[in-house]
Amino acid sequence: MATRRDGRGAEAIRPVQVQVGFHTMAEGSVLYRAGGTLVLVTASVDDTVPEFMRGAGRGWVTAEYQMHPRSNPVRRESREGRGKPLSGRSQEIQRLIGRSLRAALDLDRLGERTISIDADVLEADGGTRTASITGGWIALVAALDKLRTRGLLSGPVVRDQVAAVSAGHVGGELLLDLCYSEDSKARVDLSVVGTAPGRIVEVQGTAEGEAVERSEIDAMVELSLRGIAELVKLQSGALEQAGIDVAGLLVPRGGA
Amino acid sequence: MATRRDGRGAEAIRPVQVQVGFHTMAEGSVLYRAGGTLVLVTASVDDTVPEFMRGAGRGWVTAEYQMHPRSNPVRRESREGRGKPLSGRSQEIQRLIGRSLRAALDLDRLGERTISIDADVLEADGGTRTASITGGWIALVAALDKLRTRGLLSGPVVRDQVAAVSAGHVGGELLLDLCYSEDSKARVDLSVVGTAPGRIVEVQGTAEGEAVERSEIDAMVELSLRGIAELVKLQSGALEQAGIDVAGLLVPRGGA
Amino acid sequence: MATRRDGRGAEAIRPVQVQVGFHTMAEGSVLYRAGGTLVLVTASVDDTVPEFMRGAGRGWVTAEYQMHPRSNPVRRESREGRGKPLSGRSQEIQRLIGRSLRAALDLDRLGERTISIDADVLEADGGTRTASITGGWIALVAALDKLRTRGLLSGPVVRDQVAAVSAGHVGGELLLDLCYSEDSKARVDLSVVGTAPGRIVEVQGTAEGEAVERSEIDAMVELSLRGIAELVKLQSGALEQAGIDVAGLLVPRGGA
Amino acid sequence: MATRRDGRGAEAIRPVQVQVGFHTMAEGSVLYRAGGTLVLVTASVDDTVPEFMRGAGRGWVTAEYQMHPRSNPVRRESREGRGKPLSGRSQEIQRLIGRSLRAALDLDRLGERTISIDADVLEADGGTRTASITGGWIALVAALDKLRTRGLLSGPVVRDQVAAVSAGHVGGELLLDLCYSEDSKARVDLSVVGTAPGRIVEVQGTAEGEAVERSEIDAMVELSLRGIAELVKLQSGALEQAGIDVAGLLVPRGGA
Amino acid sequence: MATRRDGRGAEAIRPVQVQVGFHTMAEGSVLYRAGGTLVLVTASVDDTVPEFMRGAGRGWVTAEYQMHPRSNPVRRESREGRGKPLSGRSQEIQRLIGRSLRAALDLDRLGERTISIDADVLEADGGTRTASITGGWIALVAALDKLRTRGLLSGPVVRDQVAAVSAGHVGGELLLDLCYSEDSKARVDLSVVGTAPGRIVEVQGTAEGEAVERSEIDAMVELSLRGIAELVKLQSGALEQAGIDVAGLLVPRGGA
Amino acid sequence: MATRRDGRGAEAIRPVQVQVGFHTMAEGSVLYRAGGTLVLVTASVDDTVPEFMRGAGRGWVTAEYQMHPRSNPVRRESREGRGKPLSGRSQEIQRLIGRSLRAALDLDRLGERTISIDADVLEADGGTRTASITGGWIALVAALDKLRTRGLLSGPVVRDQVAAVSAGHVGGELLLDLCYSEDSKARVDLSVVGTAPGRIVEVQGTAEGEAVERSEIDAMVELSLRGIAELVKLQSGALEQAGIDVAGLLVPRGGA
Repeated sequence: MATRRDGRGAEAIRPVQVQVGFHTMAEGSVLYRAGGTLVLVTASVDDTVPEFMRGAGRGWVTAEYQMHPRSNPVRRESREGRGKPLSGRSQEIQRLIGRSLRAALDLDRLGERTISIDADVLEADGGTRTASITGGWIALVAALDKLRTRGLLSGPVVRDQVAAVSAGHVGGELLLDLCYSEDSKARVDLSVVGTAPGRIVEVQGTAEGEAVERSEIDAMVELSLRGIAELVKLQSGALEQAGIDVAGLLVPRGGA
Repeated sequence: MATRRDGRGAEAIRPVQVQVGFHTMAEGSVLYRAGGTLVLVTASVDDTVPEFMRGAGRGWVTAEYQMHPRSNPVRRESREGRGKPLSGRSQEIQRLIGRSLRAALDLDRLGERTISIDADVLEADGGTRTASITGGWIALVAALDKLRTRGLLSGPVVRDQVAAVSAGHVGGELLLDLCYSEDSKARVDLSVVGTAPGRIVEVQGTAEGEAVERSEIDAMVELSLRGIAELVKLQSGALEQAGIDVAGLLVPRGGA
Repeated sequence: MATRRDGRGAEAIRPVQVQVGFHTMAEGSVLYRAGGTLVLVTASVDDTVPEFMRGAGRGWVTAEYQMHPRSNPVRRESREGRGKPLSGRSQEIQRLIGRSLRAALDLDRLGERTISIDADVLEADGGTRTASITGGWIALVAALDKLRTRGLLSGPVVRDQVAAVSAGHVGGELLLDLCYSEDSKARVDLSVVGTAPGRIVEVQGTAEGEAVERSEIDAMVELSLRGIAELVKLQSGALEQAGIDVAGLLVPRGGA
Repeated sequence: MATRRDGRGAEAIRPVQVQVGFHTMAEGSVLYRAGGTLVLVTASVDDTVPEFMRGAGRGWVTAEYQMHPRSNPVRRESREGRGKPLSGRSQEIQRLIGRSLRAALDLDRLGERTISIDADVLEADGGTRTASITGGWIALVAALDKLRTRGLLSGPVVRDQVAAVSAGHVGGELLLDLCYSEDSKARVDLSVVGTAPGRIVEVQGTAEGEAVERSEIDAMVELSLRGIAELVKLQSGALEQAGIDVAGLLVPRGGA
Repeated sequence: MATRRDGRGAEAIRPVQVQVGFHTMAEGSVLYRAGGTLVLVTASVDDTVPEFMRGAGRGWVTAEYQMHPRSNPVRRESREGRGKPLSGRSQEIQRLIGRSLRAALDLDRLGERTISIDADVLEADGGTRTASITGGWIALVAALDKLRTRGLLSGPVVRDQVAAVSAGHVGGELLLDLCYSEDSKARVDLSVVGTAPGRIVEVQGTAEGEAVERSEIDAMVELSLRGIAELVKLQSGALEQAGIDVAGLLVPRGGA
Repeated sequence: MATRRDGRGAEAIRPVQVQVGFHTMAEGSVLYRAGGTLVLVTASVDDTVPEFMRGAGRGWVTAEYQMHPRSNPVRRESREGRGKPLSGRSQEIQRLIGRSLRAALDLDRLGERTISIDADVLEADGGTRTASITGGWIALVAALDKLRTRGLLSGPVVRDQVAAVSAGHVGGELLLDLCYSEDSKARVDLSVVGTAPGRIVEVQGTAEGEAVERSEIDAMVELSLRGIAELVKLQSGALEQAGIDVAGLLVPRGGA
């Protein structure tokens, strides 16, 4: 088995760097780097919810995702979405980020407030949606920690620790956490959004061309869950280093 | 195990009605009904390809998906996408339809032409994306048959017979082919786009709320593949009845 | 006098096929075919009226018209109005449909509700606006019949039976109910929206190029009114066959 | 028969004031006032035609129509069409102006150039579309005169002198050239675009509410043609006063 | 020192023609010509203010600026802002006009009403923004005079007489009130919005290319203020000729 | 004279932090902080120029400016410019940034290439336009340094060192480099874009309310130029620390 272009083994995730609190105005923020992908995620708290949810006492999490015009080796001709609709791809991704991070919370316990996640991809080398989710969970927790500190939470609200990664078949090999050049050659790729105890929030797999055997899908899910197990450790470490007590925000298992 | 509202068993697909050739201008068309969901799919052939593909000798399949303003029990306030961007949901779905039907073809054998799939959901009772794909494959084959009849195909171009269905966990039970009222209560739902021999083109599963065990995902994939096995028989029957020889359009296994 | 391409006489309308109730969710619907033109019209009832009419106790009828992207021999590059303004032509037509069907009703008797007409042209071979009006009246009555059945109408609300047709001068001959190839060669064409007793709701005549004598306009109005007399019989027959009692919905002459 | 609010008789047109050459940059221009309606019409000549007409040697006339935000007693909240689609009404009107003025010319004789008519309604008191056409014909001729003076026309190009006016039934009376307060009360109104010898370019009649007898339509056409006969004299007088020789631009009858 | 193309001296403003009351519906209006630049400015009074100002008892002045499609020697391909965003240049200018004319008033004394300035550039030969401001002040005062006449003002509301002009360095010479051909060759140009007693509301100077010495900026400000001194006399004269008593609208110095 | 809220003297600029090369894909980048304002500026080089400049052998600099949705204490409801026009304010600012940085270069020496400046305001506490220009010049030089290193520049191209700052009158005092709370209370504020030797590229001054004496404008220009003298030193220091040789990129005075 050959090593990969960046020296990683087939089943290794990319090196991750996390800077919690990079953006000082937002309640929570993280500058999240995974290999050549760099995402600024902010979590902003607003004390209202969308109109269709008013009065129900539940909270909401929403997300916006955007590529910086120079997030790629060549600058895009114009800023995505400026004066025109957001691309279908970006819409899909921001809907996925929102769903994934809503799954992380017990929205009833959050109370009637909205947390807005802004995932700005500053540099892109593959895996921007999974980096936005993994980093987004950190920013979300940092924002909740600020609410707790201000005495605005009546108890724990985080149901699950959520992270995401992708896997793919490239040239006959099963690889974890694809960078852009691998992703563009993959015969099939699959993203998993999962939790600390190895449960699944979302799975999306696509054969780029010919259909694949079910066993290949299974193997990719398996490998992705191993990657998520590593990522949740990195998330916890980064929050601990930033002095944020995650445990106190977690809803105890069995409690509702 | 209780029977479902419409009398089906938990593992049964909905009754399907197929009218091939409903729309007479399009090269291929089908009026596809699955339970309370009614989709008009047309397949239009154009002898050019998008600019980024010119000169490569390959074909392309693209899709547009749209909800009729009265496809739901209450009319929408305005036509989707009219004078404003298409919703994120519709964009996701039409991108999925396009990918799924491209997977069905050997695009090199299609030659430099584009087949445009228009999936107009006239009535919606859940499963509109899977109906669009299952019906779309029929319309696609009908259009290819017309090309063959006119002597415009040099040989078979269909790589796979493609159909799609969803499954979900509703109130503790695993159900196949969810209608709207089931879908809106599902704790987790999953769509599979698969092929006649049981391979997978695309899988998308989402926990609506709390994360789920991997074994639940596996069971839903399993059940969906059984549903797809039934749907491909219905597709073949409808095309046969319309006098279309599918076998002659299929690329023989092992051939490239 | 030569017969026409489709075998009709100069003063004959095209063969009409009417399927009442094709769309099951809408209160009223009709699949209306006139020659090669196929329109799906739905009538949806909503228990509110536009803001500028609130509290006046009057009802309203509004219309949306849209061409299916493959309603013509060649598929349009993109769906009309998607993400951009509706064409001027389509706007003109949907305004005309709305005005014409409002004229059919006694809006005071309708009560404060809106009936939305959706005219989707699935296949177009000329006369799509007149087909939308003639078919639209059928869908409108079917919807009102449903309201009556549910006990929601206090009495009759239909003031007039309304239908529409066009006439034109093509190559020296006066022809009724032009198909596309005739329409595109017409030196002058004119549409009339009229009622069962031969009154006029709307007349629109345009010389395509040089101006015409007033007598030509008069002859076209005359011929169109004869066509409308035939169409109203077809409308009545279709509704009767669908078990809908039109007479009971008609406001008696002299009554207000 | 009572006189009208502005002292006119039922069959009288409004006082017209014409200032040819108000706008000095445009090849042709007119500031046209009819009663309380004031329209600035410019005719701009461009030596190209729309792409679909290239190489055919024919000319084209196109029109844009716009209401000044303060053309009404109360200022509109925002400029029409600014950053959003033009209203359906304005689109209808500018399409009508374009068709009407194309009918005035022999486009083959114009040569491959486009004349753009800009009709800016500065003040509106009814009849803005007919004023735009009547004034537009003057601006068009002024522009053609400039082309002739510069030696750019090989011969006469004007096929017809075109003007327009409306008539309507208001409170039991048939009135010519309705002002806004009359128009808003009319039971039926009708516009005619006609030529100097009394031929018809376009007729549009609409019953506002209940359908009307054909004889009423006939009477309105008749009255409108009498109004047009007066307007063409006013057009000729204004051009003469501006030193423009209309006769020399008119294609002789019988000639092609 | 050579005279300029139009015979003016370097430090002379262009000939100005002012027609107060050209537009009769608007409370105030002026047709303002400065050399080859012609602007129609209307001032419309509305008895409400934007939502963010409600209840504060203060008035507001807002402006819209638009180029006529044929305001230049060649017609623009399409009307500015129609169905698309207004250009950045026009947005800048209309924001400038609004700020400048707000500075002219004591908004507290105006009361809770909005005056909307519409500056329509009919012909453009440079200096359209300064003409819009200078003419706009006249229209504004005419509108206020109408309010006073109707007894709707409790006292004087005009704080300053405001006018604007530009200066620039062209080919080594300092010129006042640049026309288009001068402006396009200027190495640096500067606009000043100033008041009757020589105070400054706004100054905007831009080096077109290389930076300039501060002394050059100073000289341009100086020259512009001399031009403004002339323009305020022309404004006063035009209003006097129109029978409007400006003095009675001016807030006395020292009074608040 | 009281010290300011952040302890600065009236004539002091805010503390500046500069991180050159923060963004690794862009040819040049800087993370620029001035007090509470944080801007990410990237400079991307493209080897083409806008169509209207092709073949002239000159280069171009263009700019896009955007506020992060959480750049303020409260998150904006939606991303600026997404699916709708950019605000007038942002358009003004990005036009100003482009003009200012074009003035910094000898575009003839740059050759036929475009440098795109992206100024993303991550946190905003006043002075975002001047920070974008001052930081933008650093990013621009870093990008040019990369071109030189790659041997793509034939000689020096930077004509001037450009920086920007604002001044204002707040509560009777003249203050330099206003933060948001000062800016919102200023009676008049003025921005200067200037060069290392104290020349002026652009000056924009606005009285917020009543007009001001010319001497006040003069004092603000004077103070701003002193601030610019400090900023150019900070720019040079930051580039030196990043190992970039600015001197070698500067066009020698007197040379052209």
